[in-house]
Amino acid sequence: MTPFSYRCTDCGRTYARDAVRYLCSVCGEAYRPGIPLLGVLEAVFDYEAIHRDFDRANPDWNLFCPVEPEFHPPIPVGNTPLGRVDRLGAELGLSSLWVKNDGLNPSGSLKDRASFLVVAEARRLGMELIVAASTGNAASALAAVCASTSTRALIFVPEKAPKAKLVQMVLYGAQVVPIQGTYDDAFALSLEYTAKRGGLNRNTAYHPLTIEGKKTVSLEIWAQLGFQVPEAILVSVGDGVILGGVHKGFVDLQRAGLIDRLPRLIGVQAETSDAIHRYVESGVYSDATNPTTRADSISVTCPSNAHGARRAIEESQGLTLTVTDEEILEAQAQLAGRTGIFTEPAGATAMAGLTKLQGGPNRITGSGPVVILATGHGLKDVEAPLSRISIPLAVPPVLEALTL
Amino acid sequence: MTPFSYRCTDCGRTYARDAVRYLCSVCGEAYRPGIPLLGVLEAVFDYEAIHRDFDRANPDWNLFCPVEPEFHPPIPVGNTPLGRVDRLGAELGLSSLWVKNDGLNPSGSLKDRASFLVVAEARRLGMELIVAASTGNAASALAAVCASTSTRALIFVPEKAPKAKLVQMVLYGAQVVPIQGTYDDAFALSLEYTAKRGGLNRNTAYHPLTIEGKKTVSLEIWAQLGFQVPEAILVSVGDGVILGGVHKGFVDLQRAGLIDRLPRLIGVQAETSDAIHRYVESGVYSDATNPTTRADSISVTCPSNAHGARRAIEESQGLTLTVTDEEILEAQAQLAGRTGIFTEPAGATAMAGLTKLQGGPNRITGSGPVVILATGHGLKDVEAPLSRISIPLAVPPVLEALTL
Repeated sequence: MTPFSYRCTDCGRTYARDAVRYLCSVCGEAYRPGIPLLGVLEAVFDYEAIHRDFDRANPDWNLFCPVEPEFHPPIPVGNTPLGRVDRLGAELGLSSLWVKNDGLNPSGSLKDRASFLVVAEARRLGMELIVAASTGNAASALAAVCASTSTRALIFVPEKAPKAKLVQMVLYGAQVVPIQGTYDDAFALSLEYTAKRGGLNRNTAYHPLTIEGKKTVSLEIWAQLGFQVPEAILVSVGDGVILGGVHKGFVDLQRAGLIDRLPRLIGVQAETSDAIHRYVESGVYSDATNPTTRADSISVTCPSNAHGARRAIEESQGLTLTVTDEEILEAQAQLAGRTGIFTEPAGATAMAGLTKLQGGPNRITGSGPVVILATGHGLKDVEAPLSRISIPLAVPPVLEALTL
Repeated sequence: MTPFSYRCTDCGRTYARDAVRYLCSVCGEAYRPGIPLLGVLEAVFDYEAIHRDFDRANPDWNLFCPVEPEFHPPIPVGNTPLGRVDRLGAELGLSSLWVKNDGLNPSGSLKDRASFLVVAEARRLGMELIVAASTGNAASALAAVCASTSTRALIFVPEKAPKAKLVQMVLYGAQVVPIQGTYDDAFALSLEYTAKRGGLNRNTAYHPLTIEGKKTVSLEIWAQLGFQVPEAILVSVGDGVILGGVHKGFVDLQRAGLIDRLPRLIGVQAETSDAIHRYVESGVYSDATNPTTRADSISVTCPSNAHGARRAIEESQGLTLTVTDEEILEAQAQLAGRTGIFTEPAGATAMAGLTKLQGGPNRITGSGPVVILATGHGLKDVEAPLSRISIPLAVPPVLEALTL
């Protein structure tokens, strides 16, 4: 494994691997609801070693991984398909459009990547309980990965999470606590729980390995494109941690001298859950006041990784934009109908953003690969599309009765 | 592409590729409800050419594929994970147990493999309409693959198919006709439709490329095990076509001289949908009289590939068994809770069969790899597990109120 230490993304303080468990001890001392996390840590590797040892003909991705392979859970995670979608690309004026379908992770979302690494870390530390707050996907992911080991999962979710996600996490054997409140309430409660009663807290951004896990999607995209940096990647944004992870993957590749530039990162938020978008645009942070979007996975008042998400956009010379729920559901249907990929509303938000972008002055005009990241499986929430489509009425099995 | 012709699996007549579209013109002349298909065709390749050209260091799977790559749809299908599940293996007395999670195909089931190849064939033939009957998964699969091309899909499904499957196929843009009747009624109606009104019929077993598509799962399993033949593969059985496909994959490898034996194929049916099991046991075919199983994907009165399924069991020195719905739902929970893999009831039927087998006189005792084929995604039907589990009640977000 490549040597690494942790560094605070806010103040730059460095910590030896085992001197830290969560946030920077100075910047992130106390979590206060209503303020995005400060003191989020990132793993900083011996990039010269990676540069020396990485072989494109036989890639060893563990060079980028901060937990030794012997602790990795036995469930296969990642290696999801990246497919070229020329039909859709032609409609959007893009000659090289791709969809990374991360809904095809075992529990149905990109969050499996983060849970995989946090569970690996718990096994390394000999910890038997992992605690998380989640809108639903991170919890399903944690429950699934824990099921493949003997680790216990305790999960706080808003009671309004889609039923399919709740069924998943209970069936996987996690202890599930639905909360009469929002995701932000669940986030605060889970932190209080681990502070007072113990367990490894897997909250997104709070545990540095969530971003490290999510970055693997970027390593894969790079390799699947034949070791080419995309022109742009469109990412749905709620908490800003997937965006942070996508960014970190390419930052690691750049620091290791394996690529010479970052892809432009384009963060797309639902218009009622837009705290990061407004922060990027104005430089002043304030909570989303009423995140009512149908895209439950990106519905958040106070995004934990707001600061990191803003850095990711700025460093990559990207941008953010917002879309309506109607645009999201339209994009979900468009993606399904043009590519065969059925992604949940939060996953389709990236697609909705691309459609909006291509209709305006900031449209992407280059010929390099553009990647839509589809973050979660459409089957997670089959009620959502039913606001636009309907199931035809049943007919008798008689050919003469059919007008088709 | 490797040269091939079609051969009738019943009488052995051989047909040039373009002399045939569906069944053997003699054995399979007329489809009659209540009788399993006769005259199912299989592709017979120039196996010497495969033997000569196949390179394990750089496998070209198109050597086994009866449609040229230029006609393949652009949607990535297959390449699903095969994971070793030691926790579960230990409970079942197996030292090398694996799960092939084919629910991680784009539309959520193994059927994507068949649809991929049938749509490729339609493109080769310049046909713009594909017609299918389905319990739900084959239809979702056809709709998804057609969405990635410009092919039209017309689908007949029983009106009682799980809602998630119906939502999928409508969202993908297929023309969906729910039928007031059973899968068998839909099957008959779709054949009448294509006979009288045209279109390529994708019905399972009826179109020879459905089995050719499904066989790819066996090629992958072989490669993923380091080019090793498993000791046994457990397969849920309804129509018997997945079983036929798994068998054909290893038969092709054996004919090409790449392996020297077949894995034992163990077909597992729901006890109310047991026509193939009784046919294998007694040698006399009769329909299942009332296939009421909760495992909707394997609920069938008259299995189209009953003859081929029986041959697959016999040639591989395998066996069949049946399980109850209670055992299926217990297996679904056990698989989820031990491995993190959430598969629909029909997918868990294979697991239920293994559990039953290991508790009896025919248990598998060897140390070679044993593979459970999980055929469909659990999110296809989230109501099914709710007969065994329940979602906990919501609580206020106050730590003191928690007794955990």
